[in-house]
Order: sequence, then C-alpha cells, then structure tokens
Amino acid sequence: MKSDLDQYLKDYQADALWVTGPGKHNPAMVYLTGGGHMTQADVIKITGSEAILCHAPMERDEAANTGLTTLNYSRFPLKERLKLAEGNRLVAHALLYKHIFEEIGLTKGKVIVYGRTDAGKVHATLNKLQEFLPDLDFVGDVDDAVLLQAMATKGAEEIKRIRNMGQLVITVIGRVADFLTSHHVVNRVLTKPDGSPLLISDVKSQINLWLAELGAENPEDTIFAIGRDAGVPHSSGTPNDPLMLGQTIVFDIFPCEKGGGYFYDCTRTWCLGFAPKEAQVLFDQVKSVYNQVVSELETGKNAAHFQDRTCDLFEAMGHDTIRQNPALESGYVHSLGHGLGLNIHEKPWFSRKDDDSNMLQPGSVFTIEPGLYYPEKGMGVRLEDTYYVTPEGKFEKFVDYPMDLVLPMN
Amino acid sequence: MKSDLDQYLKDYQADALWVTGPGKHNPAMVYLTGGGHMTQADVIKITGSEAILCHAPMERDEAANTGLTTLNYSRFPLKERLKLAEGNRLVAHALLYKHIFEEIGLTKGKVIVYGRTDAGKVHATLNKLQEFLPDLDFVGDVDDAVLLQAMATKGAEEIKRIRNMGQLVITVIGRVADFLTSHHVVNRVLTKPDGSPLLISDVKSQINLWLAELGAENPEDTIFAIGRDAGVPHSSGTPNDPLMLGQTIVFDIFPCEKGGGYFYDCTRTWCLGFAPKEAQVLFDQVKSVYNQVVSELETGKNAAHFQDRTCDLFEAMGHDTIRQNPALESGYVHSLGHGLGLNIHEKPWFSRKDDDSNMLQPGSVFTIEPGLYYPEKGMGVRLEDTYYVTPEGKFEKFVDYPMDLVLPMN
Repeated sequence: MKSDLDQYLKDYQADALWVTGPGKHNPAMVYLTGGGHMTQADVIKITGSEAILCHAPMERDEAANTGLTTLNYSRFPLKERLKLAEGNRLVAHALLYKHIFEEIGLTKGKVIVYGRTDAGKVHATLNKLQEFLPDLDFVGDVDDAVLLQAMATKGAEEIKRIRNMGQLVITVIGRVADFLTSHHVVNRVLTKPDGSPLLISDVKSQINLWLAELGAENPEDTIFAIGRDAGVPHSSGTPNDPLMLGQTIVFDIFPCEKGGGYFYDCTRTWCLGFAPKEAQVLFDQVKSVYNQVVSELETGKNAAHFQDRTCDLFEAMGHDTIRQNPALESGYVHSLGHGLGLNIHEKPWFSRKDDDSNMLQPGSVFTIEPGLYYPEKGMGVRLEDTYYVTPEGKFEKFVDYPMDLVLPMN
Repeated sequence: MKSDLDQYLKDYQADALWVTGPGKHNPAMVYLTGGGHMTQADVIKITGSEAILCHAPMERDEAANTGLTTLNYSRFPLKERLKLAEGNRLVAHALLYKHIFEEIGLTKGKVIVYGRTDAGKVHATLNKLQEFLPDLDFVGDVDDAVLLQAMATKGAEEIKRIRNMGQLVITVIGRVADFLTSHHVVNRVLTKPDGSPLLISDVKSQINLWLAELGAENPEDTIFAIGRDAGVPHSSGTPNDPLMLGQTIVFDIFPCEKGGGYFYDCTRTWCLGFAPKEAQVLFDQVKSVYNQVVSELETGKNAAHFQDRTCDLFEAMGHDTIRQNPALESGYVHSLGHGLGLNIHEKPWFSRKDDDSNMLQPGSVFTIEPGLYYPEKGMGVRLEDTYYVTPEGKFEKFVDYPMDLVLPMN
C-alpha cells in the first residue's frame, strides 16, 4: 500500500525516491500525483517526508491539482543555467536538478530513480549530476523492492477503480459477442451488410469506439487473433483477416482508465458457430487447469508456486511447458499471470520463486491466464480473469463473464 | 529524414544507436519498427548497418511484421543468466545485453541510447553493462543531434499521415462546434436535455468518442479550458465547469494515430454566443500576430527567430513576454511552436537560437501557436495550426479550419 512506501524506502536503505517524466502514461508518476497533464515533472520524496512536485510554470494549475507541495522550475531559469554551463545543454539540465536537490536539502545518500522517459537522456543527466553532487548515489529499483512493492497491495479505493474497469471490460466483451453473432454468414465467413467480409480491423474499431464511449483507453491495443495468430500469445491479430466460423479466436482485452490509470485484463477464447473437436479438447483442458489453479489459490504462497502447479497440470495432460524449455512455441508457453494496477504488468511476478516479496496477500491484484498454443495446428486457447485478495484473505474475481468456447450465430 | 540516419550517426561519431522499451508509445521505437505490440524490445543499429530487433519469444510475430532482422531473447535464457549472476537480477539483465552486443559484434565505441522506459532501471543496467563491456560508451542524445534530427524532416509518406490526422482533427473540431451550438441556453449556461448544465467533462467525453470513432487516440488528453483556466496555457480544463456564454474557451486538440503514431496539433479559441470586448481585442491581436508571423516564415531561418519576432510584435502591443521574464504568467508566456511528428514535441525547437539544427527547411513539420493569457481577468486566447515545408520550400498549412472567436448559438 501507498502508506507503506516510507517503510519500503527504509528497508531498502534509500534516502529518497525521484520520479521523472511526463504526468500521464507514467505509472510511477500517476501513483504519486494522480496524473495531471504535465509535459515534464519531477516528484522527489525524501524518506519520511512528503513528496514535492517540480513542474513547468505553464503547468502550475495541473501541478496544484495534485495536492502536493510544488516547486516551479522557473525558480532556476534555463537562461542562467545555460550561461553557467557555457551553452552545454547537458550541464544546464543537470544544474536544474543540482539546484532542486540543494533547495530541498537532499545532497547525500541513496536516491532511487523512477519514471518512464527518455532512457539515454536520463542516463547522461544522472552521470553529470553525479559529478555535481558526488555524495548522492542514483540507483534503479531493479528488485522492485520499493515503489512496485507498495503498488503490489491495493487499498479499497484502488480495488473499486479496478472493479469499475472490470465492469467496463465485460460490457465491451458482451457487445463484441453480440456484434459478431449478429452477422450474416456466407461460406463460413462473417459478412457485412455491404457483402464484404467482416475483418479483424472492423472488430477492433468497434472495440476502440466502445472503450472510448465508456471512458477507457487501450494504449497497448487489444489482442483479437484468429486461427494461427491465436496460437501466438502476443500476436495482436492480422487486421485484414476475415472472421470465420470454427476457428479459435483469442480475445484479450486490457484497457485502462482514460489518461493512463488502472488497468483491467480479461481473455476469452471463442469459436464462432461451432468448435472443431481438437479446439474443444484444448479449451476443456485450459478451463480445467484454470479452475484447478483458482481453487488452490492461497495467501502466503509465492505466485510462482502456481505457475509450477500449472506446468504440472499441463505436463500431466501431455503438453510441453515453458518450464521444460524457455524457447517453447507450442504448448503452454508463458506465465500463469501477472500483477496488475497502474502497470499492465507489475507485482506480484509469477516467475520469481526465490523472492518472497511476490507472495499472494490481502490487496494483491493479479491475473490468472493459463493457455495452450499450437500455431502449427492454427489454434490457441487462453482464458483469463483478474482476481484480488480481500482484507480477510479471500480470493475474488472482480467481475464474471461466461467462458463458453462456442458463440452460436444468431 | 530516416535515410539520413547513418550520416547523423557518423557526424556524431557514434558507432551505434540502441532503442529500448515497449513497442508502442515509444516514439524512437515506433520510428524504427513501425510500432508492434511488444512488451519489451530492443533495436540496435550499428552505424552503416541495418537495424536488428531483439524481442521476446511470444512476440515473434509482431517482431517479424516489422520487416527488421530479428534476434529472439530466448537465445539467452534468463535461467542460465540468473545462474551465472548468482541470482542477482541486475547482473542477469545486464548479461542479456552483454550477450546481445557480443552476438552482433558491437563491443567497443559510442552507443547512443534511446527509448521511453523505466529511467532508473536503464541507468542501473547501463552502469552494470559498462563493467562487462568497458570499451562501450553509452551516451544520451542530449543535443537531439541524431534520431530527432532525422525525425525533424519528414518524407512524403509521413506528411501524408500527418495530413490525414489533420483532416481527422478538424472533423472533430467541427463536430464539437456543432455539438456546443446546438445546446439550449438557460441563464447564459448551456443546458442539456435533462436540464443540467453541459460540463467540460461532457464535451471531453464526446471528443474522446469521436477520436476513437475516427481511428485516433489522445494519450495526452485534450485541453478544453474555459474562463480563468483558458488563461493558463496547459490547464486542461476543470471537468465540472459548466459551459457558459461569453467566456473564452481554449480548445487545443493534439491526438495521434491509434497505437501511438503521428500527432497533429490544432487550437481554436471560442466564445459561445458573444465575446466580451476585452476578449475580442486579445483575439484580434493574437490573430494578427499569427498572420504576420506566418507571412514571414522562411526556410533557412532558425525557428527561434520567429519566437523573437512574436515577442517583438506582442511587446509592441504592450504585452509582457516570456523573453523579458521566463516566470511570466500574464501576457505571452510560452513558445511560438514546436516540431511535431511521432512526438507531440520534437525538432525544430523554437528556443535554441544558437543551434542551427533547428532551421526551418523542406520536410519540417511544426506548429505556429501564439497566445495571450490573462488568468487574473479570466481569459486566454491561443490560435494554432500545424505547418510543413514542401520539397520546394513553400510553407503550407496541412488543413484549414475557420478561426472565428464567436460561435453563434443556434
């Protein structure tokens, strides 16, 4: 939880955290500010103190709206810094941060750097700043021990926002199902009123429209992949592919609140009209693994334990798994799930057996998404829902949506 | 132009460029790959050679779609790297890149790092990698001398895509104007059919819907700010503010192609029903400066020259300008414009008088957006269009939309 942030900073022996980059689509920034329209901002939080938000003069209103103490970059005019730097922009930029750090009294110790922004420029700036403030040590939170650790357990307000996104997502899934099944079929191809085939791109346009209408966005696109594409987990689908009966469709939708807020993640696998026997078998196996693993979820266990269980179950069915071969392309080829919040992928990680910070616990929010992929057979199946752990340690699905493989055509 | 990239790399004495981060909403990555759905990717381009795309096994289709030579991360399994690294994730991560760089034969020289991703983790990884490959020097393109320099002149296909976005933007602006003026007015407040006031948030919802319908997204939100908010350039507007007659509305819309492609940027200032005299005076002044500056645009001149001209013109009218005081909040408080492409802000910069790489030249795409802001008077005016320079050196507006201040109510 956010309220544990200071404790995690102390545990990591960090003297401060520093988030840099834009105000939106920058999860660390959104977590600490709420996410205003800021082209560039910096949040600096000294361990045990309130965060300070540094902002451009034009963005003072957006900065003030965050409720944080603010510091205007205009206090340290670029013109003067460039003069001091003899025209060197890197030096002038590093001087801005030197002034800010001195202003807030942070001139020695370990500073964890966060923020989604230009990697090369930050690296160069930190190296230069290091020369000016040699007693500061700039580190990355490579173990996800601080900010992602705080984010890994959600409070009631966050759970509510994620549930609202879940509700929105199943509304869209329902509309997509209705949209598909209301189409005319000619020679097994879904056909539009103008006689042309319904394409993946048509479905995606509808999805984008409904997401916008309901107040969400999908910065990472939507996976709507049919046939062979469904057999490649992150193939997002081929825009010109027609929608045909009897082929597996993997529909994985993971939008966030408009402006880069909380995500939700859900996958259904459909066959329009009918399912080939082989697809039905794969589907039943994935569903049984899904149900089995969900029934075994338990707090105090590392998420990776359930990835292991999933591999056990699929291997017992005769499928190859990624546990046996990390380069696997046919069988069970990915992780069982991932934490989810302001990042589409965050803690708990399902792959860190030896890192107990990935335990399932009250406030955990994560996906469960077993799948089987056989691109060479032109099919794939994945089933996914987002779960959370209640304060009492109970596992709950945020929202429910039917899992049927076959969508009968109207 | 992209075809000049090798020349810019040579001029900068760089041996390679390296773009890291996600496939989407990462302009450097989109520029070099076209922007597929990849959670994490790396593009490495040795100067004078073709770019190589490193990708996760699950994302091999999306990677292949880029047409680049690909290298699958699964070649260097995490498990083995973690073993070598004795469980240290930072070391294991740096080892991935050590292996990749060795594989492609890049073990000494200057590598420019790009990519919108977690700043702290990259910084830590680069420092560790530096230990493994001490003859490589990882730098940031702080002078925007290479990738942003290539991006600063657009080819015909890019111009076409930006023009399409422009067409889409003015379609949305027209719909917003129709939407607003079709409302009933009660006591100077626009009123919805249910009798409640029309709010900024209602207008923004409509805008988001239309953008999605037309195939765009607005990752950075839209500025729709009325009254005092219009007097603060980057205030994006207060959601619960009602739409009232006779107040300046700054409507600044800057969406991009769905998935994080090319942007377009346009601003109109409106008063619904009527304009107070003072607002009309400001508007006429901004419009006259806009027209004057546009008439003076000339290739071979630094963009900053036109910022200077704009300050001359506004100062002659009695307004304070940011040239006189960088912390200014009333008057002309920002820059005349900015280059635009896959980034909403890119080269040419309008603030680098001494850097001739910001000259206007064939292929330049940039905004012209003078404005005047008086938050204490509850008003602001900005007018903006996006321009480009033809191969023959002519300055053209991408699309046209009326500039009238007053929108008469139906």
